[in-house]
Amino acid sequence: MLHTNSPTLRAASYRAIRLASTATKASSSNSGSAPATASVTGDVSASATGSSSFRTTKIIEPLDSKPNIVILGSGWGAISFLKAIDTKKYNVSIVSPRNYFLFTPLLPSTPVGTVEEKSIIEPVVNFALKKKGNVSYYESEATEINPERNTVTLKSISSIAHLNTDEAASNSNIKHNQAAELKYDYLVSAVGAEPNTFGIPGVEKYGNFLKEIPDSLKVRERFAANLEMANLLPKGDPERKRLLSIVVVGGGPTGVETAGELQDYVHQDLQKFLPALAQEVQIHLVEALPSVLNMFEKKLSSYAQSVLEDSSMKLWLKTAVSKVEADHLVASTKLEDGTTKETTIPYGTLIWATGNKVRPVISSLFKKLPEQKDARRGLIVNEFLQVNGTRNVFAIGDNAFSGLPPTAQVAHQQADYLAQSFDRIAHLPEFQTELLEGSADSTTTATELFKKNSFRPFKYHHQGALAYLGAEKAIANIVLGGKSIYTGGGAFTFYIWRVTYLAMILSARSRFKVITDWLKLSFFKRDFFKGL
Amino acid sequence: MLHTNSPTLRAASYRAIRLASTATKASSSNSGSAPATASVTGDVSASATGSSSFRTTKIIEPLDSKPNIVILGSGWGAISFLKAIDTKKYNVSIVSPRNYFLFTPLLPSTPVGTVEEKSIIEPVVNFALKKKGNVSYYESEATEINPERNTVTLKSISSIAHLNTDEAASNSNIKHNQAAELKYDYLVSAVGAEPNTFGIPGVEKYGNFLKEIPDSLKVRERFAANLEMANLLPKGDPERKRLLSIVVVGGGPTGVETAGELQDYVHQDLQKFLPALAQEVQIHLVEALPSVLNMFEKKLSSYAQSVLEDSSMKLWLKTAVSKVEADHLVASTKLEDGTTKETTIPYGTLIWATGNKVRPVISSLFKKLPEQKDARRGLIVNEFLQVNGTRNVFAIGDNAFSGLPPTAQVAHQQADYLAQSFDRIAHLPEFQTELLEGSADSTTTATELFKKNSFRPFKYHHQGALAYLGAEKAIANIVLGGKSIYTGGGAFTFYIWRVTYLAMILSARSRFKVITDWLKLSFFKRDFFKGL
Repeated sequence: MLHTNSPTLRAASYRAIRLASTATKASSSNSGSAPATASVTGDVSASATGSSSFRTTKIIEPLDSKPNIVILGSGWGAISFLKAIDTKKYNVSIVSPRNYFLFTPLLPSTPVGTVEEKSIIEPVVNFALKKKGNVSYYESEATEINPERNTVTLKSISSIAHLNTDEAASNSNIKHNQAAELKYDYLVSAVGAEPNTFGIPGVEKYGNFLKEIPDSLKVRERFAANLEMANLLPKGDPERKRLLSIVVVGGGPTGVETAGELQDYVHQDLQKFLPALAQEVQIHLVEALPSVLNMFEKKLSSYAQSVLEDSSMKLWLKTAVSKVEADHLVASTKLEDGTTKETTIPYGTLIWATGNKVRPVISSLFKKLPEQKDARRGLIVNEFLQVNGTRNVFAIGDNAFSGLPPTAQVAHQQADYLAQSFDRIAHLPEFQTELLEGSADSTTTATELFKKNSFRPFKYHHQGALAYLGAEKAIANIVLGGKSIYTGGGAFTFYIWRVTYLAMILSARSRFKVITDWLKLSFFKRDFFKGL
Repeated sequence: MLHTNSPTLRAASYRAIRLASTATKASSSNSGSAPATASVTGDVSASATGSSSFRTTKIIEPLDSKPNIVILGSGWGAISFLKAIDTKKYNVSIVSPRNYFLFTPLLPSTPVGTVEEKSIIEPVVNFALKKKGNVSYYESEATEINPERNTVTLKSISSIAHLNTDEAASNSNIKHNQAAELKYDYLVSAVGAEPNTFGIPGVEKYGNFLKEIPDSLKVRERFAANLEMANLLPKGDPERKRLLSIVVVGGGPTGVETAGELQDYVHQDLQKFLPALAQEVQIHLVEALPSVLNMFEKKLSSYAQSVLEDSSMKLWLKTAVSKVEADHLVASTKLEDGTTKETTIPYGTLIWATGNKVRPVISSLFKKLPEQKDARRGLIVNEFLQVNGTRNVFAIGDNAFSGLPPTAQVAHQQADYLAQSFDRIAHLPEFQTELLEGSADSTTTATELFKKNSFRPFKYHHQGALAYLGAEKAIANIVLGGKSIYTGGGAFTFYIWRVTYLAMILSARSRFKVITDWLKLSFFKRDFFKGL
């Protein structure tokens, strides 16, 4: 539905802002949703990337009824923001190449089938459907943020869904896999980060990450193929031993939980039908620091370490990987006497779960904004989550750098905070004008503008941390109102871990599916199908 | 465990038989499980196929403790037989390239996610694990049955699991992807059949079958991609119309149920987030005969037809497809006046669900046995399910031709019957000797031998038929003790359909998963993820 002639004061006053700030050539009586016919200026085609086959870049004009927020991403920050934003006050467009939200905390459970991949994902449109008002989803990767003209460049649009909108009217001029620029009034960047190999040779080529659903499928495929091949080699054959060696690099929650889940599969399921094979599987957990799970208080990480040491896993601490080859990796361990010892670890499956780095769309923005010239780990934001150097671009989650850890919890709280800020902004038309067009007093920075209007800064409330160790043991530290209300490790904590994760899941469907997966596990083996 | 020196009379008497009939060169004190070192005679390498890279074919000698039954296949016949055979009396080896059983009746529910693919499959090893005694599973395709030397040729062995057996000892000489010949005392062939294109050009290249799990994934992938592409084309564009056209060829249960499930997805789910698109999807159901679901009594098939005609599907009866191109097919419809009318139907997705033909391993056996020279639709079997022209080869399910319909029900009953026959055989050592070595009176045929020993012939008990029509309506005819106890069509019958299918599922895990899938569906939309 187009509300071009919407009589409300807010919409009308907003409309004036938008027309002024974007200097659109469409006449004001024209509906803003009718896409301008490929109007291209020299600088647009010059800066547009990823669209080599298109000489001209199509500009997608947003709906005209309300201020338009474009969200980049479909992870914790993006979807939490979508859930929280009041779509009666804003039109919202979400851009992401991944058309579903992924509940990352349970990703380590999926390669071995403790939880199904489909159980921890939820289509973006399902979240969008729950909103009142105009919400559009663009299945596409944003390759450039262009703050100078308030657009994002979409590399190739594979699908568009307009929820509660006249879809047919809006799409008519965009072709499948076409590149385009999408206009925004406000941009919320929440594209997350990508796995970091720290430049270590061979990781990208031979290792498996565990960051997305296809990674999980690949790990299962690889491990299953290795089990098959090893099974047809005689006991004692070094190649059999190599195939049955799994190396997990990274002693953070993802690495530890993945190693624990693999161990569970081997002990609880594989043992039942291929016992000789199961007994020979060797899992290595490699961490460069002197201890695993460093984000936990010492007591818990020590407990975790003792659990892992008692398991059949091999723990390599103070060990840094220097090179990865197709069938082995080279690592150096710092010894007590200060010297280092180089070891070669043959592997059949290598899982790389160390850290993250910024995505290209973000590092590209660093270069466009002088205020971001020192940015490395994410967009530098102020206490209102505004990207330094912009007035209407915000960043939340792992693509923002604010000194907080790159966790779901931080992204979620930032998203809720920002949605509340937008609630206030909707009631402050003059603030909006000043923010989008610059204030009359041009020396007022965006930060000062927020302060002047009494916006409270973002404050992170740590609610604790959890990690699964395998063999139905977990560690947890749960914080409420700044006070630690539960600290524990062991089998009971495993239930705390489960209940907390269930509570964190963002959709009822996904929660239902995870519950049934866990319930299934109490009666049956894991579903571990090669290639499925 | 090897029971070479097992003192029981049965094993000892059997052992004498096996040594005589297979003329093995291994000394009698040697364990039969130690594979003979690639002993190859001229005729072995001449007739072995599918192993071009191996000059010599390895012979896998079975365990020596009990008579060895080799089962080919992992479908209804094979797995029902495995469940029923007494593995205390026989060593059993299963050979199949597909390492899971597939509950075919629910396959039409999987492309749109009404039921998950993983919910209707169960690993072969899970069935094997439940058996006492020696059971081995060879993940490999059997390419030749060699009745002249009691072996099957395995093209390429990707995995072996020995359950309740000393696995390490048995495998040591087989390499991954190696070809081999597996010896049997008795062979139960249950490899099923493959989709038949009836030589119609283009079907193989452009159509999707719906016979196996990967077919279901391909249909979903294709349909999802077409929805995406169509969504970015304007209403009225002929390409949009083509992409949204689904043609299902075949008016049997698979075709009708698949069409119904696709229709359900479009009406119940797609309608919610892409209503304009959903309204334009057109499903065509094409059948060469004058009516659909011909295996049902007239009353039910007429009801089914009226339901389908009232739906938004387009029903093409008396219509034969003559040619398939990349984006359309050509079909001829017989008109009332005896003439035929040619129509071109553009399609985005084509599902081919017409009929089956024999697999190459079976047609190859036709040529080796003069008694099978007229065989076309399957191995001709006698009333004891023995393959004509052999003494120790049996065939059940779709790869056997006995005039019965190619259904799960027939395969299941044949499997149970055959397992009972083997129960009797185990108690008749003289009968075994006569069967395997030929009787003293060489004119006694195998059929006569079964009759002489008072084996009762196989008798099929029809228990009815069911089909889902879409929109939560089904038809069913349930027969008990030869009497029809339920005949109905509609919404209540849909629950009969569900309950009956649940009862038919062969494993508790699969039943649990199907129940939770259906339960999920009453609260949430289907899981329809492109590429997952």
